[in-house]
Amino acid sequence: MNRKEISASIITIGDELLIGQVIDTNSAWIAQELNKIGIPVKRRVAVGDSFNEIWSALDEESTHADIILITGGLGPTSDDITKPLLCKYFNGKMIINDEALQNVKYLFEQVFKRPLIESNLKQGEVPDVCTVIQNKRGTAPGMWFEKEGKIFISLPGVPHEMKGMITDSVLPKFSSLFSLAPIIHKTLLTAGVGESFLAEQLKEFEAQLPSSIKLAYLPSYGMVRLRLTSSESEKEINNQFDKLQSLVKEYLVTNVDESMAETVAKLLLRQNKTLSTAESCTGGYIAHLITAIPGSSEYYKGGVISYAYEAKENLLGVSPDTLTTFGAVSEETVKEMLTGALRELNTDYSIAVSGIMGPGGGMPEKPVGTVWVAVGDKTAIRTHKFTFRFDRMKNIELTAINALNLLRKFIIDK
Amino acid sequence: MNRKEISASIITIGDELLIGQVIDTNSAWIAQELNKIGIPVKRRVAVGDSFNEIWSALDEESTHADIILITGGLGPTSDDITKPLLCKYFNGKMIINDEALQNVKYLFEQVFKRPLIESNLKQGEVPDVCTVIQNKRGTAPGMWFEKEGKIFISLPGVPHEMKGMITDSVLPKFSSLFSLAPIIHKTLLTAGVGESFLAEQLKEFEAQLPSSIKLAYLPSYGMVRLRLTSSESEKEINNQFDKLQSLVKEYLVTNVDESMAETVAKLLLRQNKTLSTAESCTGGYIAHLITAIPGSSEYYKGGVISYAYEAKENLLGVSPDTLTTFGAVSEETVKEMLTGALRELNTDYSIAVSGIMGPGGGMPEKPVGTVWVAVGDKTAIRTHKFTFRFDRMKNIELTAINALNLLRKFIIDK
Repeated sequence: MNRKEISASIITIGDELLIGQVIDTNSAWIAQELNKIGIPVKRRVAVGDSFNEIWSALDEESTHADIILITGGLGPTSDDITKPLLCKYFNGKMIINDEALQNVKYLFEQVFKRPLIESNLKQGEVPDVCTVIQNKRGTAPGMWFEKEGKIFISLPGVPHEMKGMITDSVLPKFSSLFSLAPIIHKTLLTAGVGESFLAEQLKEFEAQLPSSIKLAYLPSYGMVRLRLTSSESEKEINNQFDKLQSLVKEYLVTNVDESMAETVAKLLLRQNKTLSTAESCTGGYIAHLITAIPGSSEYYKGGVISYAYEAKENLLGVSPDTLTTFGAVSEETVKEMLTGALRELNTDYSIAVSGIMGPGGGMPEKPVGTVWVAVGDKTAIRTHKFTFRFDRMKNIELTAINALNLLRKFIIDK
Repeated sequence: MNRKEISASIITIGDELLIGQVIDTNSAWIAQELNKIGIPVKRRVAVGDSFNEIWSALDEESTHADIILITGGLGPTSDDITKPLLCKYFNGKMIINDEALQNVKYLFEQVFKRPLIESNLKQGEVPDVCTVIQNKRGTAPGMWFEKEGKIFISLPGVPHEMKGMITDSVLPKFSSLFSLAPIIHKTLLTAGVGESFLAEQLKEFEAQLPSSIKLAYLPSYGMVRLRLTSSESEKEINNQFDKLQSLVKEYLVTNVDESMAETVAKLLLRQNKTLSTAESCTGGYIAHLITAIPGSSEYYKGGVISYAYEAKENLLGVSPDTLTTFGAVSEETVKEMLTGALRELNTDYSIAVSGIMGPGGGMPEKPVGTVWVAVGDKTAIRTHKFTFRFDRMKNIELTAINALNLLRKFIIDK
């Protein structure tokens, strides 16, 4: 292909990133969007609110990439030093940008309905050497600089503001400036097999891959994601992806890059079936994974979070005898929770879980990490006992993903 | 204080970080842990699985910091090139480390119960110029190198493996090597006031801060977190933090760095009261925020996720008339949901929410982002209508945080 390879580096600014107070989710989103239009991200760098650190990051990243995308450090308060620094770095002077100033005024008067003060008006200022990227969702304007053949773009760190500006202004401008071909990623998910075992099985497949296609292994939650990446031929990557699918078909969960909840959602939609949940130890997390998907009300009718014995009895009709005899974390209890959810919520399928997520609550015969899961419908119930050995949040996540996978298998096997 | 300032840089390796497939949560955790023992993180860099990129990151980061902490790139599959690269970078040769090899064998035979293959055995190899950091939770050993006064540490990217090795080996070694004083962060959360307005009110406070103490503003979810940071005197930062609290007391939510759910949890524990939830649009997310906290079964008895009308009627006793007359997203409905949850789950307090999270489901009179929240107990109910204007997940998060905040105020005002 006859095009210049354009690459990007992302600089995120903020002490909060370096003390671990905030997790950077912006960079992942930006990387995805840039990839879609054919711009690979070579590096991501986070630096603090320090003049010297930001300055040297600009210097260094421009040796690595053609586009330097900077987020953060543009708020109205005095911990934000990025704008004056950029002005100096590009030898400009500060001027009022009328459109940006009007936007600040409009937002305060019409949307926030809060008094406008001095520091807000300063948000309408930009270096005279930049092209302004208007921010429809917030007060800080974006800035586009060019220097020695490199493009530097500064955007606010607030995710929905940054996203709006990238989508509305930055990406269209890149597409008009450069002749780009999208970078194609194809991802599938396997379950029930280890990374090294898969790699052994895929040795020959990997050896025959053209140099333009790369295979990657991404293990998580006891499952392994396989990803093919190509920036060249869509046809070739599709061919190779078909091959890969047939090689791992025994372990294949899904052939698209989606969450386990999305895989289950698609199955339910396709079959026009409904789902309910009865959660003890996962405390609503399974329901959350499902309801985070737009349109989930089409197949998900609701659920019960039965943390206390009382909730299991009152809302799901679990028998007090069962709870006393076998305990809340038992095959018998999750079966009754399942039956109760199917009945009370009147759904085709249901998932029930009960376990001990830690750090407290473990017993010699039921240590932390013990989980009973039941999935099924009015005619059949399948149960499984898991033993996870991680921290509370990880145990919750693992329980949720594995419970959804168990339901997936139940539906497919029917 | 008479100590050498030791700083760190974190390099994370993996194409998945640069295409946005994975969000880096490791770096935030590492930064927190290093801060606790007095090591500031100056930079965080993510690079792909590329020999040249990793090599140049090692070169560059060693000009920025004393400690270079590398995570990722150590799995058994062929996309992992870090170990041979490190071997070359530090002029070593590969040797078998007996303890690491025994660990690999033990994990496969006793824990995973999977066949051990060639590529797994290679995980027992390390460069002869490193000190091995044993990995009790996985097969990839960690490595500690020293070169020209700088320390380079390579750890696997799997979070719970990396965390175990940092806690068990890396931090104790740092503490014994360096004379460190912890970096102290004190954070408080305000609600109901904008960042710029706060900054205006805190101008004098900021001006009188000693140079060793830094104030930062972290806005999110319509609330603003204020953080003081000091690596010097604990007494002085405590004094300043007291001052800060009294200056913002009108807006103060909590004076510790904790989630809104944790603030509510502490209130409930202190008063020995119980909570239930009745969620429609948040689909279990409020319950998840609460049950993610260890020990939450002491005050949280359970909840209902009433996505469908049927669930609202069957499980919470919402009247079909109310639903027909006012709709699911209405003050009347959330009040009945609340009453139902208080009754069915027999708790002191409850939270009920119903809304339209988008992207679909909006109506002219109830656009996407419309949410009704009710909080209360058997004697009083407080309701509030919110209008959020973000994407589905952000609307869910905002609803959850604001509903918890509403309950917090209800409890405090009682």
